[in-house]
Amino acid sequence: MKACVDIGGTKVAVSLAQAGSTDLIARQNAPTAKTGDHEAVARQVMQLIEAACAEAGVPVSQVDQVGVSSAGPFVLREGAIALATPNICGGLAGPDRGLPNDWTFAPIEAPLAARFGRVRVENDAVAALEAERRWGALKGEDHCAYVTWSTGVGVGLCVDGRTLRGKNGNAGHAGHLFVSDDDNEALCGCGNRGDVESLVAGNAIARRFGVEAAELFGAAQQGDAKALATVDGLCRVMGRLLYNLTAALDLSRISLGGSVFWHNRDFLLPRLQSQLDGRLPALTDGVPLVAAGLGDKVGDYAALALVD
Amino acid sequence: MKACVDIGGTKVAVSLAQAGSTDLIARQNAPTAKTGDHEAVARQVMQLIEAACAEAGVPVSQVDQVGVSSAGPFVLREGAIALATPNICGGLAGPDRGLPNDWTFAPIEAPLAARFGRVRVENDAVAALEAERRWGALKGEDHCAYVTWSTGVGVGLCVDGRTLRGKNGNAGHAGHLFVSDDDNEALCGCGNRGDVESLVAGNAIARRFGVEAAELFGAAQQGDAKALATVDGLCRVMGRLLYNLTAALDLSRISLGGSVFWHNRDFLLPRLQSQLDGRLPALTDGVPLVAAGLGDKVGDYAALALVD
Repeated sequence: MKACVDIGGTKVAVSLAQAGSTDLIARQNAPTAKTGDHEAVARQVMQLIEAACAEAGVPVSQVDQVGVSSAGPFVLREGAIALATPNICGGLAGPDRGLPNDWTFAPIEAPLAARFGRVRVENDAVAALEAERRWGALKGEDHCAYVTWSTGVGVGLCVDGRTLRGKNGNAGHAGHLFVSDDDNEALCGCGNRGDVESLVAGNAIARRFGVEAAELFGAAQQGDAKALATVDGLCRVMGRLLYNLTAALDLSRISLGGSVFWHNRDFLLPRLQSQLDGRLPALTDGVPLVAAGLGDKVGDYAALALVD
Repeated sequence: MKACVDIGGTKVAVSLAQAGSTDLIARQNAPTAKTGDHEAVARQVMQLIEAACAEAGVPVSQVDQVGVSSAGPFVLREGAIALATPNICGGLAGPDRGLPNDWTFAPIEAPLAARFGRVRVENDAVAALEAERRWGALKGEDHCAYVTWSTGVGVGLCVDGRTLRGKNGNAGHAGHLFVSDDDNEALCGCGNRGDVESLVAGNAIARRFGVEAAELFGAAQQGDAKALATVDGLCRVMGRLLYNLTAALDLSRISLGGSVFWHNRDFLLPRLQSQLDGRLPALTDGVPLVAAGLGDKVGDYAALALVD
């Protein structure tokens, strides 16, 4: 039995899947644990796995593989991945965040591995990349990226047929790249000013323009000139990120998802593609931007992609 | 016997090395062939290998491995790497470049493989990366980059212990990333306006500021306020590129070379490091920028690193 765990800053969800199956069953979820000691998140995951097993009527001892798709970044502690996620660990971002703990990291791989054996922890965008490569719009692609444009901006990268991980498993934190000088006062959750996420993420749109993302894109699609200009500015930033990834890594395809993108995908895709086309043609010719093949289910399949 | 080939826009150089040796012998060079049909560069390389063999007193038939470190980008033609280098192929950039040919590509891997068997062609910055990993400042590093700051800006990337290649072997063309909006009129050889290379490369400095790079850095080091401000602007752009690579790929170390950097390395290193330090600490903490361990010999060892 496989346990599929999705850890976000707001919510933790766990599902089960039989060996050889892609049917997710017995889904459980709860608000992300943020009080007590820094093993609270790992304990919560174990409790949710127990609850899922109870619902499915299988003994917990049958769980022999755990895939964890989590918001990052990660740090290594004694060789095992721990979460260093600013939305979970109150000791990272300081008291301004108002989190009810002072954790600088939250162990995850070590406690789960001690109980369940095989555990694989990946950044949620990396896990979504693997899901898109197995079942979605990136099948057969050896040089590709999955980009989520949502509350934040996350990226999973694959070059030469291998998912990139990096020194602490944080490769793909490309939402924190600098691609322009627009609005250098925009403050990102990571502490940067003016990086991609601080300029275009869902929560940045609300903060920068005083309007929810859905409302802004709705107005732009109805032809409102000011909203259109704002959206073009957002697409310039996101498009430069997509171009940068393509040029730096010689990618052949990028798949996009996330709530901001997904609800406006037909409107956004040509605007983003125009930021790629014609730039450094030896690198970008014939490189398509496409909507996630798994659609709005990409998050559900992400953790499943991490287990066999 | 190994043949080590270095192809630049100005010059082609060939050396030989005995199996198991890192001594480069019988060096030959000539201005890069740019007339005749598009196999002229490959023919020139073969002639230089023949000349080197004659000088070393070994039959050409003993050459059983060829490493080619070349200016990029590359394209694949019938599965083999060909050069699509704007400084060599006159058909790419149009008549403004004044090149005496209309090549859109120049075959290199196929003709050399037909004659010598084992051939490996890599971008010159990728080859330099491999040299730095074998003999230089990146020994033992599995997540690292080599960045050359010279007439152009080139990058070789290694993540999870593997050199990144990409769909056409062009991964690492990070000199063509957009990291800021400084001087959007700056035109790069690749056609981009305002990418890193168009802003900070040696030839860009002369064009943008009307002063040779050596003169600019000399004035800055003597405390000239205007020159210092200009250099700080260059370091901001180059530093954002180095930060972007570190954050996107979770690197642990970056080694730098190239004539612009090398002649001013003690002056530039702390200025570049300050663009990395403190940004997204989970990704950048303890990531040092270092001068190339192979010093100004890194180019000589680059092609050698491509053969066993």
